[in-house]
Amino acid sequence: MNVKRIRTMGLVAVAAIVLAACGNLKNSSFGSTSSSTTTTGTKTTTTTGTADSEFYQGVIKNGRYRTSKSRGVVVSQNDNVMNLKSFESGLLDVSKKVFPTSKYVFQEGQYLSSSTVENWLGRKSSSNSEGLNPENNGKKDPNTRNPIYLQQLEEQDYMVQNGSKLSLGGVTIGLGMNSVDYYTKVEYGATYETNISTTELTAQGKKMANTVLQRLRQRSALKNVPIVLALYKQSSNDSLVGGDMIAYAVSKNGSTSISNWTSLNWKNYVFPATSESKNSGANSNDESDFSQFKSHVQNFFPNLSGVTANAHYKDKSLSKLSVNITTKFYSETEIISFTQYLATAAKRYLPSGVPVEITVKSANGDIQSFLARTAKGSSYYTHVFSDQGDD
Amino acid sequence: MNVKRIRTMGLVAVAAIVLAACGNLKNSSFGSTSSSTTTTGTKTTTTTGTADSEFYQGVIKNGRYRTSKSRGVVVSQNDNVMNLKSFESGLLDVSKKVFPTSKYVFQEGQYLSSSTVENWLGRKSSSNSEGLNPENNGKKDPNTRNPIYLQQLEEQDYMVQNGSKLSLGGVTIGLGMNSVDYYTKVEYGATYETNISTTELTAQGKKMANTVLQRLRQRSALKNVPIVLALYKQSSNDSLVGGDMIAYAVSKNGSTSISNWTSLNWKNYVFPATSESKNSGANSNDESDFSQFKSHVQNFFPNLSGVTANAHYKDKSLSKLSVNITTKFYSETEIISFTQYLATAAKRYLPSGVPVEITVKSANGDIQSFLARTAKGSSYYTHVFSDQGDD
Repeated sequence: MNVKRIRTMGLVAVAAIVLAACGNLKNSSFGSTSSSTTTTGTKTTTTTGTADSEFYQGVIKNGRYRTSKSRGVVVSQNDNVMNLKSFESGLLDVSKKVFPTSKYVFQEGQYLSSSTVENWLGRKSSSNSEGLNPENNGKKDPNTRNPIYLQQLEEQDYMVQNGSKLSLGGVTIGLGMNSVDYYTKVEYGATYETNISTTELTAQGKKMANTVLQRLRQRSALKNVPIVLALYKQSSNDSLVGGDMIAYAVSKNGSTSISNWTSLNWKNYVFPATSESKNSGANSNDESDFSQFKSHVQNFFPNLSGVTANAHYKDKSLSKLSVNITTKFYSETEIISFTQYLATAAKRYLPSGVPVEITVKSANGDIQSFLARTAKGSSYYTHVFSDQGDD
Repeated sequence: MNVKRIRTMGLVAVAAIVLAACGNLKNSSFGSTSSSTTTTGTKTTTTTGTADSEFYQGVIKNGRYRTSKSRGVVVSQNDNVMNLKSFESGLLDVSKKVFPTSKYVFQEGQYLSSSTVENWLGRKSSSNSEGLNPENNGKKDPNTRNPIYLQQLEEQDYMVQNGSKLSLGGVTIGLGMNSVDYYTKVEYGATYETNISTTELTAQGKKMANTVLQRLRQRSALKNVPIVLALYKQSSNDSLVGGDMIAYAVSKNGSTSISNWTSLNWKNYVFPATSESKNSGANSNDESDFSQFKSHVQNFFPNLSGVTANAHYKDKSLSKLSVNITTKFYSETEIISFTQYLATAAKRYLPSGVPVEITVKSANGDIQSFLARTAKGSSYYTHVFSDQGDD
């Protein structure tokens, strides 16, 4: 209890120092990276500031956010946008194990360019010797063709602040591995699927991670920094949740190969379970808590289209619950009263000790209200949106 | 300062008492109203609970929300949904002047049924003697026809708790008056407009309010309770903001006519001003604060489609600011960093002392993050949505 309080105070103190430094960091250097912002005037590096030790601060240079060098590559790789979001937030969560938010500042990847990432994501071929995916063996059968194992790759940089300078403190590389590879036999033809077992995608991912590590170590700026390699299993395109982080490893002291992987048992489920998603790994108490909440809420108001939740598990324990409620409300007073009721019902029925977010949306997707509680909090923060038009 | 603190503590104490009563109010009576819930089992009346003295608690009966008797009438009346939302929240704000949230519980209107409200909103005719709008004089010219003055009408009930019973403590009736009446000369034909001056719509509204008051006083349950009558000026269909409350009056001791109206100078503006909306009543300092915020934010990130705000004024003072930001982001880490930056920039540039809400949405309308600060708060509450799909 006391230890926790002291630790929290420490984080606050650190945050205050970093925030105090905002706007004062001039002429910072970032190792060998060049700035993508205009170079007229004095270069000024600051951080975004953070209200919460749960998040990293981000790097601002000359008043502009430092976007990724490979920005834009990732989006075309994901038909299921949940895979993009959960891949990125999963990478942040893995990184927090190695690079604590109190000591490190987040920077979008600055070392791998778009063309590098595109080449690495490609198949190996005579024109692309760097392709990490296997060469096309010419076969079209789901089980004999060489599938695309690696679907997305992302670099995240973690900076340390020394006086007025930010320097690279570590890098995280995430590899998003397909559990299903979607392909066509002819251009614009029907879509076929090659299923890839978790065992196989994990083995392929570890092999590719070693190749990536060797390539990174050849760059002078990355020769000695800690590099985290993380494997993510993509969910299928029809999944309602994103995929899961499955393993990570840390390369220190400039090592060029990794054998020591830590498995991660992180899973996402949809509540309530459907016939297709049995949620076998979810805790049945959490599911029945949610069912109780759902039935009370649906009884409370006649015009609800849906009450579902995304449940995130780490090592078989619920780590976060995101509840989505769709309404057919149009009345402001109904939304206010419903939101008040949700705060009471959520407190009574939903699992405690984990962060919960609840969004209330109209049938056409406009947000109507929002509630959230932190893991340690007992009451819900509530907000009713009054200025969100339906146009 | 001290008075304020004591008052706040009083509110908290009252809230605690009311919350403690939740679930214990059995067999409550509501004057002459009947319950719309199933009558099997014991009738139990509770309230929604409220996290905030800014809001009223709402009435729950047998675990269900008490919806309005005229539910559904209002929605067809508004082509501009902003008029519905700002009408209802304006009515709540007017009601708070007469029925404080610490003493009264909100109930959706239970006295005026859908058919009553529909008749009152209609034109007076041989088949509808109760129509409050003038009879059709057969003319089609914008300036000689009789326009529809009254566009929407809403009842709100305010309950007081005596021991374990809730009884009616007062009623608010809002009349939404057209500033523009849209009509067609032939069915499915082109739309024409009759403009109605504020002077005229106010005079018409006051006359109608007196008629409504007389009708309500004929009902035994409403014979003696305080009745608030409020006039709202609808904004035009192409307006980006809702309309404004313009006047209200309180009828006490069973009075059947009202002459003593209080004018309200409540206005909504869109920032930045456009050539069509000059925002002549808005404070230019607020506008320049917003411009500064907007330019810093747009400079910070290259992919913003829009930064606008709805500014609410009461008596020429800013009372609330709702900022809407549309992005072309797809990356979770970009959203997190952008949200952190917004919290810093909003604190620095946006007006203090008023509630501010900021919503960040993707181009297709999905909410990405949300920030809010109360009038008294100094820091922003921030939330990044990670489970909101783009489907």
